[in-house]
Amino acid sequence: MGRSPLWTSIRDQISAEIARGHYAPGDRLPTEAQLADRFGVNRHTVRRALADLAAAGTVHARRGAGVYVRHRPTAYPLGRRVRFHQNLLAAGRVPEKRILMLDTRAADAEEAAALALPPGAAVHVYEGLSLADGAPIALFRSVFPADRLPGMLAALRAHPSVTAALGAQGVADYTRATTEITAKPATPTLAAQLQLPAGAAILRTVAVNVDAEGRPVEFGRSWFAGERVALTLGPEGL
Amino acid sequence: MGRSPLWTSIRDQISAEIARGHYAPGDRLPTEAQLADRFGVNRHTVRRALADLAAAGTVHARRGAGVYVRHRPTAYPLGRRVRFHQNLLAAGRVPEKRILMLDTRAADAEEAAALALPPGAAVHVYEGLSLADGAPIALFRSVFPADRLPGMLAALRAHPSVTAALGAQGVADYTRATTEITAKPATPTLAAQLQLPAGAAILRTVAVNVDAEGRPVEFGRSWFAGERVALTLGPEGL
Repeated sequence: MGRSPLWTSIRDQISAEIARGHYAPGDRLPTEAQLADRFGVNRHTVRRALADLAAAGTVHARRGAGVYVRHRPTAYPLGRRVRFHQNLLAAGRVPEKRILMLDTRAADAEEAAALALPPGAAVHVYEGLSLADGAPIALFRSVFPADRLPGMLAALRAHPSVTAALGAQGVADYTRATTEITAKPATPTLAAQLQLPAGAAILRTVAVNVDAEGRPVEFGRSWFAGERVALTLGPEGL
Repeated sequence: MGRSPLWTSIRDQISAEIARGHYAPGDRLPTEAQLADRFGVNRHTVRRALADLAAAGTVHARRGAGVYVRHRPTAYPLGRRVRFHQNLLAAGRVPEKRILMLDTRAADAEEAAALALPPGAAVHVYEGLSLADGAPIALFRSVFPADRLPGMLAALRAHPSVTAALGAQGVADYTRATTEITAKPATPTLAAQLQLPAGAAILRTVAVNVDAEGRPVEFGRSWFAGERVALTLGPEGL
């Protein structure tokens, strides 16, 4: 096999330095001119290396501003139990939830059907932002049967964890019954809330969680910033 | 509880007619003026009903062209076995695959790692379009170990089914080991191939399928038209 082209060595070098943390996610790389000087090559060779790194998703070029190191998407496992706090910790990120709204109202048709409630039954609604290392990764809206879980809002005000609030209401464990995943462009509102550029893609999930008897306890919708999160399935027990 | 507003009855009526097939996916609804005449209400009331149907995703308004019935997204189950042909038939759609490329080349780093092959090992690449009822729903690129599965390309040329081609190579069954799901805006190329408007969102999956002994047989990437497909998990055995 022949000698590798020069640009691949430069790409590998920059990639290794990014992996070692010499350039952190969000950092701007040196300019093409600076890199060409550093490596003793022409700018075309540098540009080729950077293009390959961009294609791999390691860096991205912002028109007129430079080339930046991308954040790796946070792996978010969807398994039998989906737990926000644990998922982020496992990914090496600091989890945080910010409450945007806590309210009680009548269920709409989709919510009532998902929760096996009569149309218009009272539900508690918990809307908030999910953050990883202080950066928003999702907007969520969770809906709970109010009649069965009267203390949910008070529990969530005290501590914004769904798992803890359900536990305090006597639901010691809950598992994921169904999840539906689609993608759509961010609305202006979502883009603002998630600090996304216009036209960013949203990964939307709609899910039902059930208790140990299989009764629905939560109907949740989440809108993830599409390139900050990777929903993962497997390897154990898909 | 008081009487429902008039617009909700009109919304329910139009929704029921869509559900019954009076208006099929892709059909343009009558104009606001025509609907107002038909129901004996003012255009504001009709507009309110249509806005609700648009918010629910049942119809969408094309600026200057009218209001159209949306196609329901095709439910695409991701379970222990993911089978394109069966998934589409189960959703009541006609499945089709169009081959764009069949080739043998060296695996890139990601492909070699996923298939547990040495870097640069020969792989067969199958790139194509997936269609439902003649409309593209995804672009896919599947990569197979060439050494182990020498006849894959010939088998796929004869019949574009991965399941059949693997079967002919002695892989009687294969299961989904891992899947990673993200969302990103469509590139101009993807938008053209999938007949999507500029700025449409793509649902991207990266997956490994393994044989009965757990050895990788396929590394597949798919780029789904985000609003034409809903990936589903559950209800049985998440």
